[in-house]
Amino acid sequence: MKLKIAVLAGDGIGPEITQQSIKILKAIADRFDHEFEFEEAIVGAAAIDLLDNPLPEATLDLCKKSDAVLFGAIGHPKYDNNPDAKVRPEQGLLKLRKELGLYANIRPVTTYPKLIDQSPLRPERIQGADLTIFRELTGGIYFGEKSQSEDGQSATDVCTYSVEEIERIAHLAFKAAQQRRKKLTLVDKANVLETSRLWRKTVKKVAEEYKDVELDFLFIDNAAMQMILNPKQFDVILTENMFGDIISDEASVIGGSIGLLASASVGGANAMFEPIHGSYPQATGKGIANPVASILSAAMLLDHFGLVEEGDVIRKAVATSIKVNVCTEDINKDNPYSTEKVGDFLEGLI
Amino acid sequence: MKLKIAVLAGDGIGPEITQQSIKILKAIADRFDHEFEFEEAIVGAAAIDLLDNPLPEATLDLCKKSDAVLFGAIGHPKYDNNPDAKVRPEQGLLKLRKELGLYANIRPVTTYPKLIDQSPLRPERIQGADLTIFRELTGGIYFGEKSQSEDGQSATDVCTYSVEEIERIAHLAFKAAQQRRKKLTLVDKANVLETSRLWRKTVKKVAEEYKDVELDFLFIDNAAMQMILNPKQFDVILTENMFGDIISDEASVIGGSIGLLASASVGGANAMFEPIHGSYPQATGKGIANPVASILSAAMLLDHFGLVEEGDVIRKAVATSIKVNVCTEDINKDNPYSTEKVGDFLEGLI
Ligand SMILES: CC(C)[C@H](C(=O)O)[C@@H](O)C(=O)O
Ligand SMILES: CC(C)[C@H](C(=O)O)[C@@H](O)C(=O)O
Repeated sequence: MKLKIAVLAGDGIGPEITQQSIKILKAIADRFDHEFEFEEAIVGAAAIDLLDNPLPEATLDLCKKSDAVLFGAIGHPKYDNNPDAKVRPEQGLLKLRKELGLYANIRPVTTYPKLIDQSPLRPERIQGADLTIFRELTGGIYFGEKSQSEDGQSATDVCTYSVEEIERIAHLAFKAAQQRRKKLTLVDKANVLETSRLWRKTVKKVAEEYKDVELDFLFIDNAAMQMILNPKQFDVILTENMFGDIISDEASVIGGSIGLLASASVGGANAMFEPIHGSYPQATGKGIANPVASILSAAMLLDHFGLVEEGDVIRKAVATSIKVNVCTEDINKDNPYSTEKVGDFLEGLI
Repeated sequence: MKLKIAVLAGDGIGPEITQQSIKILKAIADRFDHEFEFEEAIVGAAAIDLLDNPLPEATLDLCKKSDAVLFGAIGHPKYDNNPDAKVRPEQGLLKLRKELGLYANIRPVTTYPKLIDQSPLRPERIQGADLTIFRELTGGIYFGEKSQSEDGQSATDVCTYSVEEIERIAHLAFKAAQQRRKKLTLVDKANVLETSRLWRKTVKKVAEEYKDVELDFLFIDNAAMQMILNPKQFDVILTENMFGDIISDEASVIGGSIGLLASASVGGANAMFEPIHGSYPQATGKGIANPVASILSAAMLLDHFGLVEEGDVIRKAVATSIKVNVCTEDINKDNPYSTEKVGDFLEGLI
């Protein structure tokens, strides 16, 4: 297969981890006789520094011309604590999601037996948990109108959802549930929000087409509790943008390391693959960042194009590396391997 | 001291647990020679059933005339799954908060050594955690305009905050931090929301008056992770309404039982005290609900009126009951005491 992959390494540890993923994808191309073409472009704080624009036109064009985007990470502390900054790295990511029509962000949370003891949760709570989150990614309060009153004394964000926006991701989530344990939990705040009530109503209607999937509902506050109390109850979680941001980050740590979790953003003509973790500025350039989340995102990229055997090869390599403890310091505290060494080891297994 | 206390027991287990709190408050009045007058009124699903109004005028009037409100719980499953219901129990609670001007919801999260093993978190993560959450309670997306498009194809919720709304709760939170470990964490989503940027800016300004308090910032998604990874890092958390709803429910389970956590809602001429848990419909009438969260809310009520010694008597009694395992089934699985028996035991210690 021929694939053109845009590489947007971004800020912080983004470049170091993405480099490992490219190495792995190249190894896969060699072994399975594919042709992957990589082209890099700037995004985020790096792009602001150079061009005053977190998503330069050339970068967006490249993404649109490519089959898939491999994304690193975005964000820089110098913008976080400046409420007056006019341009922020995150705008680049948000615009990219919107422009590429990536309305569904898929975040699988799996556990590795060897890492159970690293989970902040007690082993009996986490052992065997296996869930996947479908987060709506191009709507809601993220993309609603934002304003400040003229006197600067008040600020407003608007959250809107349409039936169509809800339906299209609901279908994806139900289809995924059919391939899994056939349970879908809608997370919302229907006792307070009008948008949540539209979600509940619409998802109930979509459910009629998936009678083999059991549908239930949880308020977001309750879901945030249940994720700690009993994560095993979840199979597929479907939720709107902001709630998805929160619940998926919460879910990401229960497995033992956020450095292992990948995500796919799909929906449009192309798709984007990125680790769940952020730009981790404190670690930048130190060679300590875990490249596995990015590498597993590359595996999701392969799955997306039907190259499931190839994806499995990567996943098996990762499982092996964890078993034999060839891991960065977030997992292997006693004798940590560097970002690059982990990448090399995985490359050797392909 | 003379206090007029409105009792709004509400739905589900509300009445059974509130009854125990009244018993305890009466015992306190006896021992310390206070005069507490209790008057009950209906609210929530019970009030909808009777009067088609989750907060009848008479109930609101009673609250306004009283010094404090002792609140049970609200909510009924028959409304949760009906997106078309015009009247919902929760509207009663929200209106009450608004009408009484209860802009600050205070939720302390403490751990009891004996319950460490019931926490879903590993002991070393949770042991010694002691934090308190200041959640803004009368603004944000809860109270913004809600609408549906005419064709029913889209829905909208608006989130607005003013500098004044932020300042008043920020002052309360900083003052609380001064009495504690002098650290305040603002939880927001300033990389995406305009309202969050106003929070950050305003809280920074308020912080100048509290130079002895260390201020830091966390995005809500990161906060939801940190609450599991390392809850001990938190002292006072300050946040807006919706984020506060989520993070405080998440925080409420790490101590081992949500059945122990109390809250105070303050700001206006009077104040309201309620357990953090909900109406727990499955347990209604079975005598298995834990009354301690409501009883500790009664202790917060006493504190609020300067009766700190009295509040301490209740807290000590509760600590004793946990030590000797006179607890309901959520805590004492082998030999559970009933709701009433726990109340009786605590009464005996006063
Ligand atoms: C960087 C930020 C804007 C982003 C989001 O909130 O969507 C991130 O937290 C994520 O989850 O991908
Ligand atoms: C019942 C509901 C409206 C309420 C809220 O969301 O505020 C509850 O979850 C709470 O936290 O008190």
